[in-house]
Amino acid sequence: MELSVQSIDINVGKHKVVLNNQDARELGVMAGDRVRLKDHGYLTAIVDTTDDMISRGTMGAYHEVMEHIDGTGTIEITPATKPASIGTIKKIMNAQKISREEIYEMVGDIVKENLSDIEMAAFITATHMNCLPAQETEWLTRAMIDTGEKIEFDTHPIMDKHSIGGVPGNKISLLIVPIIAAAGLLIPKTSSRAITGAGGTADLMEILAPVEFPADEIKSMTEKVGGVIVWGGATNIAPADDKLIRVEYPLSLAPSCQLLASIMAKKGAVGADCVVIDIPTGAGTKILNVEEGRAMARGLIDLGARLGMQVECAMTYG
Amino acid sequence: MELSVQSIDINVGKHKVVLNNQDARELGVMAGDRVRLKDHGYLTAIVDTTDDMISRGTMGAYHEVMEHIDGTGTIEITPATKPASIGTIKKIMNAQKISREEIYEMVGDIVKENLSDIEMAAFITATHMNCLPAQETEWLTRAMIDTGEKIEFDTHPIMDKHSIGGVPGNKISLLIVPIIAAAGLLIPKTSSRAITGAGGTADLMEILAPVEFPADEIKSMTEKVGGVIVWGGATNIAPADDKLIRVEYPLSLAPSCQLLASIMAKKGAVGADCVVIDIPTGAGTKILNVEEGRAMARGLIDLGARLGMQVECAMTYG
Repeated sequence: MELSVQSIDINVGKHKVVLNNQDARELGVMAGDRVRLKDHGYLTAIVDTTDDMISRGTMGAYHEVMEHIDGTGTIEITPATKPASIGTIKKIMNAQKISREEIYEMVGDIVKENLSDIEMAAFITATHMNCLPAQETEWLTRAMIDTGEKIEFDTHPIMDKHSIGGVPGNKISLLIVPIIAAAGLLIPKTSSRAITGAGGTADLMEILAPVEFPADEIKSMTEKVGGVIVWGGATNIAPADDKLIRVEYPLSLAPSCQLLASIMAKKGAVGADCVVIDIPTGAGTKILNVEEGRAMARGLIDLGARLGMQVECAMTYG
Repeated sequence: MELSVQSIDINVGKHKVVLNNQDARELGVMAGDRVRLKDHGYLTAIVDTTDDMISRGTMGAYHEVMEHIDGTGTIEITPATKPASIGTIKKIMNAQKISREEIYEMVGDIVKENLSDIEMAAFITATHMNCLPAQETEWLTRAMIDTGEKIEFDTHPIMDKHSIGGVPGNKISLLIVPIIAAAGLLIPKTSSRAITGAGGTADLMEILAPVEFPADEIKSMTEKVGGVIVWGGATNIAPADDKLIRVEYPLSLAPSCQLLASIMAKKGAVGADCVVIDIPTGAGTKILNVEEGRAMARGLIDLGARLGMQVECAMTYG
């Protein structure tokens, strides 16, 4: 089908187009299906449909699609198949085994924003209900590392620390990083900014020094002075993580295998060899009791071993 | 927070607003959270965030929100809590019991478009993985009936038929409806239009007569001539169903309890007392073997009994 293009200057975070319902029916696609756009090259986009917003013979193209197409003439549009990742997500729902290749393709689709909110939410819900086995969690973590920037140091060991979060407070990293560096070890610590609280470790550090650096500068600074505290969000380290969190947040879900993969992918991406993880336990924290804390610690230590990292966990009180 | 309003003339099917990331952070909300807008009355909307599309001090309002607010001055915006339905969906994920009231509130939120795609997909995935028990499926069906238009006849019995679909063909309803009507019984048959196939029963019937009528005319025509074949989509019968299907479609999922509720809600809403259901079974149909067909038949008969309907099922060959 040949359609003229109408730009919709809105960022939706995905490749999305809007078709008139009658054009969509003639093309044989429904809302949520994919189409293939032929311009200079080919681009796959997710379809939305409308009765009145876009008239027949026209394709509405959101910002992310307009960046890839000419948009002045007409465009050829054909139905495209669903990504294979949807089959992988359904396998997780049905507690079937999935392969390394399937996980890598799915994480690739997540990073490239090839999956809709509906498909992403199905993935999160499925892993919450059928937690991935250890081998698949390892592959998920490796895929999250490999789809982003990686820092590789020439000297070893590289140290790192992490807290899974409890009662808010940003006191630990600012003390640990200089101590480790003073001991002659390397510690390239990435931290987060505030989400809804008053301030994150990266915000606090920014009072003292800039915190936004690309991965190669994090490496060279760490090699020069032993340690850094920087904002992880300024890098492209494990980019799948933020995209998963965006969907987990409205559901207040953090499936345990996803949580393990999320923590360890960020450590793996900066080349960590030895990691200490703080697990605050008790009222007001994410981990309600010691049993849950021990299970989390076992998961982290096991996943670390699979990734070649030595992990030690400390359960602390809030 | 007091923001000026910028209209975004796009239908997104939900009450949604877009905030600049800095305003959102100051307000303490993230993408996927709810805010409460104070204009003449109060309206709750789902938040999207942007770095550049909407500038600070401004709230972008999609079409559905603009219909409810003035938009010429500023608007007061405060964080709002998540709908209780999200807690109900999480109970389904965790295989916990849910109450009649929780199901009614959730279906109400679905009909009012109070749930985002992410939340709807979590619900569909959760019911696929943890099918609702019979009692909860009954409540789901009753809630789907009660949140839409209902036809109540003064005479009984009211007959109805349904096919769960197999190899496409629209031959049955056009034969059955006149036969039942000629036998002196009432049969208010609602049918669907084509989705991606060549034509649905309602499309075929439209060659002979109009098929779009409101519920009260379906009732009066049925009482007058014994039977009708009309397009269900022109009525507001069991409106939750279409909203669920819109999310099930991209995942190619039809959780069995949802399928039962979807079929029986439409029958219950037209006041059916006796229902015959065709279950095509075998290659090329939705039901691959006789065991699956029998389980589906048992589910339909049991749910019918709970709703006061006499259901008979026939397994047919494609």
